[in-house]
Amino acid sequence: MMMTSEKIVALRKLMKARNVAALIIPSADPHQSEYVAPRWQARKWISGFTGSAGTLVITAGTVALWVDGRYFIQAEQELKGSGIRYFKSREPGVPTVNEWIAGHLKTGQTVAFDGKLFSIEAIREMESAFAPKKLRLRGREDLVDLIWKDRPVLPCAPAIDFPVKYAGMSRSRKLKVVRARLEEKRADALLLASLDDIAWLFNIRGNDIANSPVVLAYALVGLKSATLFADPGKFPASLQRQLAAAGIALFPYEAIASRLKSLTSLKSLCLNPRRISQWLADALPKTMRRIEETTDITSDLKAVKNPVEQGHFRQAALVDGVALVRFMAWLDRALKAGDRVTEYSAGEKLAALRREAPECRGDSFAAICGYGANGAINHYKADATHARKLGPAGLFLVDSGGQYFGGTLDTTRTMALGPVSHEARINYTRVLKGLMALSRARFPMGTTGTHLDTLARAPLWAEGLNYRHGSGHGVGSYLNVHEGPHGFTQAWSPCPLIAGMVVTIEPGFYSPGQYGIRIENMVLVMPDRVTDYGEFMRFETLTVCPIDTVPIVASLLTPDERDWLNDYHRNVWKRMSPLLEKADRAWLKQKTAPVV
Amino acid sequence: MMMTSEKIVALRKLMKARNVAALIIPSADPHQSEYVAPRWQARKWISGFTGSAGTLVITAGTVALWVDGRYFIQAEQELKGSGIRYFKSREPGVPTVNEWIAGHLKTGQTVAFDGKLFSIEAIREMESAFAPKKLRLRGREDLVDLIWKDRPVLPCAPAIDFPVKYAGMSRSRKLKVVRARLEEKRADALLLASLDDIAWLFNIRGNDIANSPVVLAYALVGLKSATLFADPGKFPASLQRQLAAAGIALFPYEAIASRLKSLTSLKSLCLNPRRISQWLADALPKTMRRIEETTDITSDLKAVKNPVEQGHFRQAALVDGVALVRFMAWLDRALKAGDRVTEYSAGEKLAALRREAPECRGDSFAAICGYGANGAINHYKADATHARKLGPAGLFLVDSGGQYFGGTLDTTRTMALGPVSHEARINYTRVLKGLMALSRARFPMGTTGTHLDTLARAPLWAEGLNYRHGSGHGVGSYLNVHEGPHGFTQAWSPCPLIAGMVVTIEPGFYSPGQYGIRIENMVLVMPDRVTDYGEFMRFETLTVCPIDTVPIVASLLTPDERDWLNDYHRNVWKRMSPLLEKADRAWLKQKTAPVV
Repeated sequence: MMMTSEKIVALRKLMKARNVAALIIPSADPHQSEYVAPRWQARKWISGFTGSAGTLVITAGTVALWVDGRYFIQAEQELKGSGIRYFKSREPGVPTVNEWIAGHLKTGQTVAFDGKLFSIEAIREMESAFAPKKLRLRGREDLVDLIWKDRPVLPCAPAIDFPVKYAGMSRSRKLKVVRARLEEKRADALLLASLDDIAWLFNIRGNDIANSPVVLAYALVGLKSATLFADPGKFPASLQRQLAAAGIALFPYEAIASRLKSLTSLKSLCLNPRRISQWLADALPKTMRRIEETTDITSDLKAVKNPVEQGHFRQAALVDGVALVRFMAWLDRALKAGDRVTEYSAGEKLAALRREAPECRGDSFAAICGYGANGAINHYKADATHARKLGPAGLFLVDSGGQYFGGTLDTTRTMALGPVSHEARINYTRVLKGLMALSRARFPMGTTGTHLDTLARAPLWAEGLNYRHGSGHGVGSYLNVHEGPHGFTQAWSPCPLIAGMVVTIEPGFYSPGQYGIRIENMVLVMPDRVTDYGEFMRFETLTVCPIDTVPIVASLLTPDERDWLNDYHRNVWKRMSPLLEKADRAWLKQKTAPVV
Repeated sequence: MMMTSEKIVALRKLMKARNVAALIIPSADPHQSEYVAPRWQARKWISGFTGSAGTLVITAGTVALWVDGRYFIQAEQELKGSGIRYFKSREPGVPTVNEWIAGHLKTGQTVAFDGKLFSIEAIREMESAFAPKKLRLRGREDLVDLIWKDRPVLPCAPAIDFPVKYAGMSRSRKLKVVRARLEEKRADALLLASLDDIAWLFNIRGNDIANSPVVLAYALVGLKSATLFADPGKFPASLQRQLAAAGIALFPYEAIASRLKSLTSLKSLCLNPRRISQWLADALPKTMRRIEETTDITSDLKAVKNPVEQGHFRQAALVDGVALVRFMAWLDRALKAGDRVTEYSAGEKLAALRREAPECRGDSFAAICGYGANGAINHYKADATHARKLGPAGLFLVDSGGQYFGGTLDTTRTMALGPVSHEARINYTRVLKGLMALSRARFPMGTTGTHLDTLARAPLWAEGLNYRHGSGHGVGSYLNVHEGPHGFTQAWSPCPLIAGMVVTIEPGFYSPGQYGIRIENMVLVMPDRVTDYGEFMRFETLTVCPIDTVPIVASLLTPDERDWLNDYHRNVWKRMSPLLEKADRAWLKQKTAPVV
């Protein structure tokens, strides 16, 4: 096994031979996925930093890593002694990767990277940042590949048909809708690289990225034809026949570039410059006359769940809630019995309980189980050796979710394991007030997540407090746990909330070194009513799981808030109690008792 | 006097002779002012529609007017029988002016307009909308001018010095600040057309637009020089000397284009493409190397009131509040005595009472006095002949404000003149809840008006109700009653709220044909506290005027809301009661009594 220092020496040798002054190694795959398969975890392999996001830059004199706010503490720990500098992305005064490179290289020097891993948009940003220094961009070669002898192969999990029973719409009908959109845009075809968009459009699922049931693929949808570029070996014969019946040709994954080059009859194309790599753009036939840059047509379609998907989502939320309730009841009993439970073993137990449901297809993301001060670390990952033992005091934050054919789940609960400081209880109540304010919102057509985000923050803002993440994100139907284009963010989201969208509501509060609080439900955007002021919408809460009432400072709740909470718990009890065994049912009865 | 039909016949004749297929007549002056002097009220002169905003389009077959939500009812009434179609701007499915023209003209036809009245940005929007049809733009000629025989002359009100005592900052210091910004941007000069920016920067005031104390002018501020293009005859000798002492040259208004053309040493220029006309841009010297498009540097500076201005604003709000209270008390007595009072005579009385204060320099806009159903017309203007007589029932909406050296005021109160329907009372309470929610907000640095706008609407949204205007706008210091760049709008406002900004909070509800409700206060953005989450801000309410508590359904108020309202009234009583005569004081005592 090579050490980090050896890898860097080897890369610098390659760089020198090629006259490369800076090498950029991002946390990306050729599909601009949020999470990537091991084959594309080059940044982790070289630097030893294990976080999901971060960009490494190597020059003759410096190795530097840029990480975002989720990973400041982790980067500090993991890079210790490596000689790698780290930069806190987006903090005041910290240069971006591009700014730093532009500042440190000499005029006319060369910046290298693997062009497959950078979107058209990212390359444009580089060009504009590097133009004043006349830096040259070289994206044709993957230098890391030359030294990474035991590099993981391409993921090769089998693909499955995602039944219309769950999808609610056949792949043929989806193709028809996409083609209608192409005709509106007077484009010949749509080029797709985004894996969840491809899985959605072709009604296929796979297991090529941990927790994300996608199939590694590209796709090209024309007005008459459709081609899926994916390893045919992953597709069982029956699925191959189904695809063929829908007029979908299956080409090898690696054939995308040569196939694109040969399509000289293609005159106009829709693509998303944030998802299509520069490498793919370079493979487009020279005969192409017009490229219409859009967000992916499929992203907008996928975000609005059809009634069949909505029905399954309600059911999947109940199944996932049962696992969470069984976990919380078990934890309560285990701690009362004095059993040793750590953050890690609690997470293992939760995963095991989830898997007991036959419908469960795994976790939708690596669960976060943070006790006490660890709850304040946004992407805390307990490991077997360093996990904290849970004690009879303080708050325990658990953010987790299962994958089901019926939907992808994401729920956070923060539990009092015993006495909790008055300050933490007040802040818990404020976070809950934020959750309820947003959950109870009714709003007209045209309202976006940015218009509503403030409702979740206002109870904290009133005291000069805040949280440094969005108030919620879209979620897939047995797909990615983070899905666009909508979400609750202070950064302007131009995407209106539309009936059928699924989104999380997850305000939080984090007291560094002390405790973390987050309460997260999933909600479905529902039509409310049509008035003289247009169509109004409301949220239906999908998540079925009690919210710990023990830390609530009840005097801070308004009567309306109390009613909402008690109604919610009444509904949890009603739907879930028949599904539980006796001990768990007794626990739920107690946890769903009304707050007075 | 020409009739609308004759004017249109005459214009169509000119259009035909010039091969013009569509003529656009906007509601604009060469400075992109919101309100314009009579000379530029061509759209009103031709169409007969008297609203402040609207765009007229004439083709061979159609005359059409686009009006926004404030004017739907008024346009319907005023255009009756004129043969002019009207379009509801921004309503779903309604084409924009440009879309409509692009859809109705034939390929290659010509669209004409007066280029002085369209900003650089507006021309770009036209170009992009008209490109697919290859329509030609012709902005060199003012066709209306050729038929408008009795067109009003250029406004010629005298200019005055705006004393540093009120401005809080000398014109020399303001120029210094602007020059520092220019140096940051590495620009040689700033070109200004926006009249309130010019008045602010040069500490001058005038009376060239009704209710807006501005001077018709352009300005060019270089790193060493500053030139004001305005009729020198308006400037008393003493003011001319003061300007000269600050290094400000005075050129005739009409000299701007020729002067610009001659400035060949000018290499780089800052300008706001939304305020500088295409006509002016065309006058820039061909030697210009770089145009930096910005929002006006002065707009950002002007929006943040300095401590001197803040102090005067508090005092001006009190003086204006006294006039409003004297008016409301008088109205109460007059109606009880059975006197005949109409919307119009009430407005006259209010204006007269305002002018009794020696500090008052006039109204800041044409007051809106709408009784009953007229209150639902957003920009209702009562006239002497058609004004409704006020009766002993229903709601009376009064939106008005005075101009003072200390500040520009804008206050709306809705009063119950007697019994009010239960529905109207509930909606009055919802509007009040919206006002209070926004007034009580605390928020971190970076928050914009769009983030907070929802707080004012949420109580109405909850019932499927809404209002079709923003929740508030910036206000000038003895300047325009509407001032950017900040405001509370659902349309994305990227401008953060900064301590020192003055803004209105004015939710409303309008039941067409029934009643209108709006409650409007002015607030000042104040620093609140600095925490681990940055600087937080809050609003200080400037307006000193009781809010009618009679229509409130008290059971809908939370204890916090009740406290806010009672605190507000306690403060109104405390500050204002010593300034009132006995009868008015007794009235105020009663109107500021706590709600229980």
